[in-house]
Amino acid sequence: MMIASLPDGQLSADNFQLASGPVAEPGDGEVLVRTLAITIGAGQRAGLQGSASYAGAPTAGRVMNGTGVGRVVASNDAGFAEGDVVRGMTNWQDYASAPASQWEKVDAGGDPALHLGVLGTNGLTAYFGLTDVGNPQPGETVVVSAAAGSVGHIVGQVAKVKGARVVGIAGSDDKCRTLVDDLGFDVAINRKDDDFRDQFKAATPDRIDVYFDNTGGDILGSALFRMNTHGRIVCCGVVSQYDTSTPGPGPRGIPGLLVNNRVRMEGFLIFDYADRFVAGRAEMQSWIDSGQLVPRVSEFAGLESAGQAFVELLGGGTVGTTIVRVAE
Amino acid sequence: MMIASLPDGQLSADNFQLASGPVAEPGDGEVLVRTLAITIGAGQRAGLQGSASYAGAPTAGRVMNGTGVGRVVASNDAGFAEGDVVRGMTNWQDYASAPASQWEKVDAGGDPALHLGVLGTNGLTAYFGLTDVGNPQPGETVVVSAAAGSVGHIVGQVAKVKGARVVGIAGSDDKCRTLVDDLGFDVAINRKDDDFRDQFKAATPDRIDVYFDNTGGDILGSALFRMNTHGRIVCCGVVSQYDTSTPGPGPRGIPGLLVNNRVRMEGFLIFDYADRFVAGRAEMQSWIDSGQLVPRVSEFAGLESAGQAFVELLGGGTVGTTIVRVAE
Repeated sequence: MMIASLPDGQLSADNFQLASGPVAEPGDGEVLVRTLAITIGAGQRAGLQGSASYAGAPTAGRVMNGTGVGRVVASNDAGFAEGDVVRGMTNWQDYASAPASQWEKVDAGGDPALHLGVLGTNGLTAYFGLTDVGNPQPGETVVVSAAAGSVGHIVGQVAKVKGARVVGIAGSDDKCRTLVDDLGFDVAINRKDDDFRDQFKAATPDRIDVYFDNTGGDILGSALFRMNTHGRIVCCGVVSQYDTSTPGPGPRGIPGLLVNNRVRMEGFLIFDYADRFVAGRAEMQSWIDSGQLVPRVSEFAGLESAGQAFVELLGGGTVGTTIVRVAE
Repeated sequence: MMIASLPDGQLSADNFQLASGPVAEPGDGEVLVRTLAITIGAGQRAGLQGSASYAGAPTAGRVMNGTGVGRVVASNDAGFAEGDVVRGMTNWQDYASAPASQWEKVDAGGDPALHLGVLGTNGLTAYFGLTDVGNPQPGETVVVSAAAGSVGHIVGQVAKVKGARVVGIAGSDDKCRTLVDDLGFDVAINRKDDDFRDQFKAATPDRIDVYFDNTGGDILGSALFRMNTHGRIVCCGVVSQYDTSTPGPGPRGIPGLLVNNRVRMEGFLIFDYADRFVAGRAEMQSWIDSGQLVPRVSEFAGLESAGQAFVELLGGGTVGTTIVRVAE
């Protein structure tokens, strides 16, 4: 799938178009991979603003970039053999060839999509952001925005494992029901409800100890006014600002409320935690095995559905990790 | 000095008026103190907004509140004797009687004003905010706003002791000269200059590792765009917002810039550090003794000058700690 045009305002499926070409031969030291599945994240929308200037930045006429898992079909590197399952920048294509250093071998058993969700970047982001930056204690109140998203739905479940009371904020009643009924959140609130602020207040009678912010904007603004003394705000993403070209002003009350309530607000990026990925994945796998952590995916079939999947993701129509199945 | 009226907009000296009355007899367990000096801080302006509802909140007809040092003239508590020098809420008055628990004995030698500045709340705020929340490392760049203020001028000097490169932001060329020529700052910038942003950029070629924020508002907004990866913003005060009744929106780029640069932004209040005050004062005293730390005061003579001192402080006319000498 190529980028047909950069979006001018809201993304549409027409911003992408299918194209065919010969499968690349792997060059010296390269590994050729058959894509099995790709994942799409809201953060990728920011890459389509047209302002990035690095080599390979998304622009019209290029293959759309993205992370996937695939099976090695030809290898010019001793570290990879045919049949290995790897994760890397497959981009939105059936076959991808890249230097061996850009592929990471993953467990070939089970559903490869797990390596794009709970055991991939999204899961690790939820795990380290919550446990390391937020550090919730038993009995504390954790609030997470975009709670039904790829990161949010794991944040809430990990917070429950840690003994916290968990409030999720999502964009539809359906999502809220999923969070409470299927994923064990204590409360979930629809941010589109007219009385959202009243519901938010009622849902946090002991105020907020950890706010995991995936959205920025108004929800961050509301959370700031509900923080407990020595509360922590984990700044993970700014989904409210991705699908627009001009970010709005920051929330009122910064820095005054941070001072009065001695609140810490901290941004993080997951690759700073690379040396702890193995341990993080192992702990999450143990929670999956014990049934304490239930990863969710929204699946789309075929590379040709990727543009539509991206639009639905940004429009709030997906739950959990958004996965496009490319091949068996 | 009484509060004659709460300020409607900018504070003026007319908001205060002198009044006389009998000196209170100390009650049971109380200690009567002759005020020697009081200090005025920008943060007290916030207390005059008229919205506070606690008992004793500042309002027209009350004595203006404030911290001072004084000499005990009569004591009904075994812990205090005539001649002791104490710090506490003397308020803006010649004599103050209060329960013993509200007075803190200080070293009776030397200038009592030191106990309102570098060895008082201002100095401790600078010390713990910078060293504990900001934690500058040798060679890092520290920026401090309201750098010529009671807290700021100490922050910059402590940062130099810690081996950092120090950039101060102040509100006049005179103040900037004092910071560089007398207090050892590496660079000082006048925030009122038309090319402030260009100067700010030029003064931080290696970007900012620790920004000690006394102001909020536009300067915080500018600093956010200059933060280094893993930079720390110490949120200490919001002087830009004290002398107005409606706080403005927060700085643009929150939370996006915090995420991209993995920046931590943290508010603190000094009383959380109470169990470390003795150690903090001892270390600052050692730097004063070695000449590495030069505390500055702006002095006013007589209780009747307190209103004017407050106005000059808020208007940016003072350097260091603002002190009103009440008696010898």
